[in-house]
Amino acid sequence: SGKLWGGRFVGAVDPIMEKFNASIAYDRHLWEVDVQGSKAYSRGLEKAGLLTKAEMDQILHGLDKVAEEWAQGTFKLNPNDEDIHTANERRLKELIGETAGKLHTGRSRNDQVVTDLRLWMRQNCSALSALLRELIRTMVDRAEAERDILFPGYTHLQRAQPIRWSHWILSGAIAGNPLGVDRELLRAELNFGAVTLNSMDATSERDFVAEFLFWASLCMTHLSRMAEDLILYGTKEFNFVQLSDAYSTGSSLMPQKKNPDSLELIRSKAGRVFGRCAGLLMTLKGLPSTYNKDLQEDKEAVFEVSDTMSAVLQVATGVISTLQVRRENMAQALSPDMLATDLAYYLVRKGMPFRQAHEASGKAVFMAETKGVALNQLSLQELQNISPLFSGDVSQVWDYSHSVEQYTALGGTARSSVDWQIAQVRALLRAQQA
Amino acid sequence: SGKLWGGRFVGAVDPIMEKFNASIAYDRHLWEVDVQGSKAYSRGLEKAGLLTKAEMDQILHGLDKVAEEWAQGTFKLNPNDEDIHTANERRLKELIGETAGKLHTGRSRNDQVVTDLRLWMRQNCSALSALLRELIRTMVDRAEAERDILFPGYTHLQRAQPIRWSHWILSGAIAGNPLGVDRELLRAELNFGAVTLNSMDATSERDFVAEFLFWASLCMTHLSRMAEDLILYGTKEFNFVQLSDAYSTGSSLMPQKKNPDSLELIRSKAGRVFGRCAGLLMTLKGLPSTYNKDLQEDKEAVFEVSDTMSAVLQVATGVISTLQVRRENMAQALSPDMLATDLAYYLVRKGMPFRQAHEASGKAVFMAETKGVALNQLSLQELQNISPLFSGDVSQVWDYSHSVEQYTALGGTARSSVDWQIAQVRALLRAQQA
Amino acid sequence: SGKLWGGRFVGAVDPIMEKFNASIAYDRHLWEVDVQGSKAYSRGLEKAGLLTKAEMDQILHGLDKVAEEWAQGTFKLNPNDEDIHTANERRLKELIGETAGKLHTGRSRNDQVVTDLRLWMRQNCSALSALLRELIRTMVDRAEAERDILFPGYTHLQRAQPIRWSHWILSGAIAGNPLGVDRELLRAELNFGAVTLNSMDATSERDFVAEFLFWASLCMTHLSRMAEDLILYGTKEFNFVQLSDAYSTGSSLMPQKKNPDSLELIRSKAGRVFGRCAGLLMTLKGLPSTYNKDLQEDKEAVFEVSDTMSAVLQVATGVISTLQVRRENMAQALSPDMLATDLAYYLVRKGMPFRQAHEASGKAVFMAETKGVALNQLSLQELQNISPLFSGDVSQVWDYSHSVEQYTALGGTARSSVDWQIAQVRALLRAQQA
Amino acid sequence: SGKLWGGRFVGAVDPIMEKFNASIAYDRHLWEVDVQGSKAYSRGLEKAGLLTKAEMDQILHGLDKVAEEWAQGTFKLNPNDEDIHTANERRLKELIGETAGKLHTGRSRNDQVVTDLRLWMRQNCSALSALLRELIRTMVDRAEAERDILFPGYTHLQRAQPIRWSHWILSGAIAGNPLGVDRELLRAELNFGAVTLNSMDATSERDFVAEFLFWASLCMTHLSRMAEDLILYGTKEFNFVQLSDAYSTGSSLMPQKKNPDSLELIRSKAGRVFGRCAGLLMTLKGLPSTYNKDLQEDKEAVFEVSDTMSAVLQVATGVISTLQVRRENMAQALSPDMLATDLAYYLVRKGMPFRQAHEASGKAVFMAETKGVALNQLSLQELQNISPLFSGDVSQVWDYSHSVEQYTALGGTARSSVDWQIAQVRALLRAQQA
Repeated sequence: SGKLWGGRFVGAVDPIMEKFNASIAYDRHLWEVDVQGSKAYSRGLEKAGLLTKAEMDQILHGLDKVAEEWAQGTFKLNPNDEDIHTANERRLKELIGETAGKLHTGRSRNDQVVTDLRLWMRQNCSALSALLRELIRTMVDRAEAERDILFPGYTHLQRAQPIRWSHWILSGAIAGNPLGVDRELLRAELNFGAVTLNSMDATSERDFVAEFLFWASLCMTHLSRMAEDLILYGTKEFNFVQLSDAYSTGSSLMPQKKNPDSLELIRSKAGRVFGRCAGLLMTLKGLPSTYNKDLQEDKEAVFEVSDTMSAVLQVATGVISTLQVRRENMAQALSPDMLATDLAYYLVRKGMPFRQAHEASGKAVFMAETKGVALNQLSLQELQNISPLFSGDVSQVWDYSHSVEQYTALGGTARSSVDWQIAQVRALLRAQQA
Repeated sequence: SGKLWGGRFVGAVDPIMEKFNASIAYDRHLWEVDVQGSKAYSRGLEKAGLLTKAEMDQILHGLDKVAEEWAQGTFKLNPNDEDIHTANERRLKELIGETAGKLHTGRSRNDQVVTDLRLWMRQNCSALSALLRELIRTMVDRAEAERDILFPGYTHLQRAQPIRWSHWILSGAIAGNPLGVDRELLRAELNFGAVTLNSMDATSERDFVAEFLFWASLCMTHLSRMAEDLILYGTKEFNFVQLSDAYSTGSSLMPQKKNPDSLELIRSKAGRVFGRCAGLLMTLKGLPSTYNKDLQEDKEAVFEVSDTMSAVLQVATGVISTLQVRRENMAQALSPDMLATDLAYYLVRKGMPFRQAHEASGKAVFMAETKGVALNQLSLQELQNISPLFSGDVSQVWDYSHSVEQYTALGGTARSSVDWQIAQVRALLRAQQA
Repeated sequence: SGKLWGGRFVGAVDPIMEKFNASIAYDRHLWEVDVQGSKAYSRGLEKAGLLTKAEMDQILHGLDKVAEEWAQGTFKLNPNDEDIHTANERRLKELIGETAGKLHTGRSRNDQVVTDLRLWMRQNCSALSALLRELIRTMVDRAEAERDILFPGYTHLQRAQPIRWSHWILSGAIAGNPLGVDRELLRAELNFGAVTLNSMDATSERDFVAEFLFWASLCMTHLSRMAEDLILYGTKEFNFVQLSDAYSTGSSLMPQKKNPDSLELIRSKAGRVFGRCAGLLMTLKGLPSTYNKDLQEDKEAVFEVSDTMSAVLQVATGVISTLQVRRENMAQALSPDMLATDLAYYLVRKGMPFRQAHEASGKAVFMAETKGVALNQLSLQELQNISPLFSGDVSQVWDYSHSVEQYTALGGTARSSVDWQIAQVRALLRAQQA
Repeated sequence: SGKLWGGRFVGAVDPIMEKFNASIAYDRHLWEVDVQGSKAYSRGLEKAGLLTKAEMDQILHGLDKVAEEWAQGTFKLNPNDEDIHTANERRLKELIGETAGKLHTGRSRNDQVVTDLRLWMRQNCSALSALLRELIRTMVDRAEAERDILFPGYTHLQRAQPIRWSHWILSGAIAGNPLGVDRELLRAELNFGAVTLNSMDATSERDFVAEFLFWASLCMTHLSRMAEDLILYGTKEFNFVQLSDAYSTGSSLMPQKKNPDSLELIRSKAGRVFGRCAGLLMTLKGLPSTYNKDLQEDKEAVFEVSDTMSAVLQVATGVISTLQVRRENMAQALSPDMLATDLAYYLVRKGMPFRQAHEASGKAVFMAETKGVALNQLSLQELQNISPLFSGDVSQVWDYSHSVEQYTALGGTARSSVDWQIAQVRALLRAQQA
């Protein structure tokens, strides 16, 4: 009954946990894009034959009603609405009934969350972009109107050379070069894409450094996640892969140990690289314009990060190219309960709304657990007690290869889809090399 | 004589400071690009008529010799070589004599540093890019060879659905959608540029969030620097600009105060926004692939940063549009010593190498300081004691407007150049809006 | 009138700026401590003779009423209540009338804000501390009850040695040392303060590293602020101090320049040092317990930060010990309007509530500005038009030394108070050295 | 043979990996403390009867010789010396022969690394501390000598009130309170430990905020590691613990899933909390002294972090108190190879140096693996082929409980030691509560 020792919590659900888990307090910002995404998805379901035209229209109309309630401030949240997706679907069901349950067919909440956020950000970035343009336009207007005002240009906050006030507005070693040196010739000589627009900026702006350090940080974040997966897959418990000895080390104390040091080091470097990025941005923060000696910090950061990235990429390539895959262990780790979603899809294909099918499949999982048998060992009789839609062909569900081969959508795990991904990545590699 | 109180340091130069200031320990990485940049610059000087063809050839040949010494490991650093630029120029002078002094005409060391670093990074990013392609190619090769191996897909590190091993390699809610929903239709419906390549990645990758947060951080870093400048320019001591009352506040204690709160808040937000970026990257670091609840952190970060950016951009626009410029104070802050560089250029135009001209102008600055007069109040006689190249036309140097109008190179501070910058920014605005 | 160019804002106050500036949305958390702080302050005012006993009682009673309204949820915010301090004082005035204006005598809002936050954090840290103890107690209870359960200890996530489950709970090279080596003897030999409590933790916990890096970051943040002040004070515009040549450098382009490179480098190192701290924490985040190779990142961070701190502290010492102070320029920068607060205190001493006195002094500042004279050049007649409380002795206000000598409270700027600070710091130094 | 696909690496060991793994480039800083630590450890071994007095003396003498070589710059590194510990032990063996192999008995390299770093930091922090005192002393000396110089105090970089120059040096709402308000009374009234030393600092210093945010970040880093362990232990693959339903959630797509959302959220919050700490430090960096509006950022950071910590600590308490431990699965995860260290210790107790014993045990592990049997299924004959020191009593090694009970040193995993830890933590809790 819940609490074993000491904790303050009694009963079936810890209310602090519910609050900790819920996101409705902030993800309600997403109501509009959530409706927009669901409308698109219902059109996709209709095209795939999973919704009739009438069902789709019913859903579309219901979603419009949901949106209207949000827009007018009349949408009422329930205490159980943990996020905006649950809230909207719950309301849709109240409005149009059981058909609402079909909307979630074949998509996970995680899909929905991430699609909604992408949609919201696109809208929002466009609004921010307009505000940024407004700021820039205001600055250019002033620069034009006040172009005859001269004042001191500074470096190191010491007076340097006279410059136009407009030149500051349009910025950032101050006055440029008065001797007729052709910057375009220099650009061509050194093969740069463009001259910098403003001579004050040219010496004090370090966007190219900051962007490099951020690229490296983000790249290392991805590699740290890949390393984490492979460290897990290499444990005795998972035992899916074996790291080559060339990338492992032993223990000075424990004779039986073989440690994935290479992967741990890759994972750790995400911190170091990001630390350099963080350090540079902090150094730049609040600096007066033009050159200040603080900017000298840029080079060591770039050199260290470049060396680290070079080593990490080579070691990662070595690890991946020599990794042994234990395919028997991988196969043995597959279990019939992992096909519970397929069992639900079976019922969907027989016409049951997904939400009900999910519940029916969940009952089957629970029944199997209770009886202490594998999910695929429930008898047809037992399954039919859960839903009369089960018939003999349910046995076809219990085939892992068949399960995988269903996912033929772009980016899926079917062989054809994986082949397409391989081809795409190869094309990218060729394009990059050219 | 140096030390006034307590400090450990005695004498003219603190050796700890020299070491603290020097960058040669790490910027020697830049030897090759420094030579490359100087070669291009000497071609520019020749085209501008500041070097004869013979002088240019002498410099180019000398620089090749410097490069050869570095390449062969025979370049010898002096204790006074504080950075790679000083070292290379010192060596060039040893090799070809006084002509070397002309190479620095019209460029500041800060120009040189930043150009060198850009050149180095271009080279280096290309090497890193090749290593990254090698890693990706290795992964794709494995993905192709092992595409028949199935294993468990995980979300939250709990077994989820069977997937292909290759699908993991190519990643990132696991198996995709098996029901024939057309992802391309969804993409078109929602007006996204492309479908994500891999269904595992689609739910767990947050690059679009990280990149947005980094864009905002970098943008705020720039705005924090602009705010710093305007805060300084608004002090009693600078007194170049006056902030509108609409963007200022008073003090609850001191009746005479008017504080630039708007600019201080803008400056402060750089920290907040970057903190969100740092937080998200730390949350992502080392996460197993696919969806983990940790990813729920993305939304509040995006919403808060978006709100902050929106407010900051609008306040900044307001501040800039209502700022009063005090052009008399700006004009009074210009002083003849700020034309010392022009005085050096005067001698350059009469044929003196820049390094000597810089020294001659420095002597004039010192003489004026010693006599307690402004630089333009030295008599022609006094100037001719420094260099016989000075003649009556030196009086033309002492005109701030004329000084500014020399900088007609792209990005400079001449009126025509500022007009060009205004036109460029306006064109960008139009392009973005379209 | 307000807008000059382009901006969207029209009129006297930009509503976006008001919102940007206001803190009431979050600082209302502070209502209770704000009342508590104000009650203490009114007792201080009474003791100093600035409030009568009756006035103090009236204020204390009024503040209790304000607190009651917050506690019962009946406190009503006005649109003009920009922060909790304004809101509470506004309400106090509604409740008890003009006497409320005396509460702010001699304290700035910034004092109030920071005192309130300290009070709040003390309360709150105590609550968090109780929650932390509850977690630890729960863990210890389990550790005791389950101490006979054995399971694998891991390093690098590879099975290492058998350990007790309770040992994990109480953690963090796993099983310790079974050969009777006396850890207490080792501790004494190496002169550590204590043995670590748990052998798992002993090898994987890096708090001592993280805390060192954070100490360094915070120390550098302070030094960056000191450097910023001195850079400003060293500009032509402020001209309060002159940096020794030993800590300055010239420009390769501009002969007249002398740049405060030492201070700029100190300021910049705050970023680098913090970057190392950020990097280490990111590396530690989410690591499995016990030793993982990721921990190897600790040493370079410590070494680099230690070297940086060592150089920074020595250069800072050198800069401070050789800095020239320009006392005439400092004196000339003092202006009568900086005594406007003293002018208000003059009226307070004649019995006017501080809020009214602040307003009266503000009127005097405005009158002087309008007439284009210094604040101390207003005639007695003019001052008496603002308040009849002004009399001939107002002339004593216009003495900077006298002004400074008023601040005799602990930590103030009176000579005696500065002497006390010097003595305190010297005592600290002696204590640290011992 | 090593490479399977594509990678650039051929052969048994990837040299890039060796370099990536090696730490000797920077950990040579530790040579002195490594010798110091090893000397203390050899005394511990002698006291425990694991070294004879003569062996100890031989080791101590050898270590002194090693130290001498480092001090004189004559220590020669081998290409195989991956870290300072390996290097010193390798050299010791060259100097004194096989006895050197006994020095590592019962300690892991990780112990050694972390002890060395602690020793180094203690030394080094003491040196930094002396430098910091030197800076402070210099500042106090100046403050004393120049206490009669007045200059403008600034807030928001606007002139505020006159202050003493010494007051700035000793800093940081400027002049304090001139009206005789007793700060000590206020301190007592509000129950603070001390008044702040300097009135400028009192309003602008935010160490108490930064330190709170860092405490929270470090605390969250620990909790993120605990969460990571429990997430792993809760996977199907480990299956050591089961999270209560009260702290888990299901999947909207996959009926069989039960996800450890609570633990994932705890892990994720480390990023958010640290982000706030990073943000505040960046905001503080480079601010002029005294109050600037930037400081307004402090409160939201504190409030959000405090709320987060409160929720995290309560959810963590709930998770720990309701966690089900699967002791059978834990027991089954123990395997004889985890006793390989014990097998080595068996030989140590029969007089073999640890390094040889480690090698002998490693041979046994390899033999068992090759024959496909568990380590404890090797016959006595087979073991004796590895070392004649094995005899019938080796069977006692294969007892997990007996293994665990050996670790009776403070902090070990023996029952008595775990009980001691429990008692220590309980004592701490009592002390904190009092």
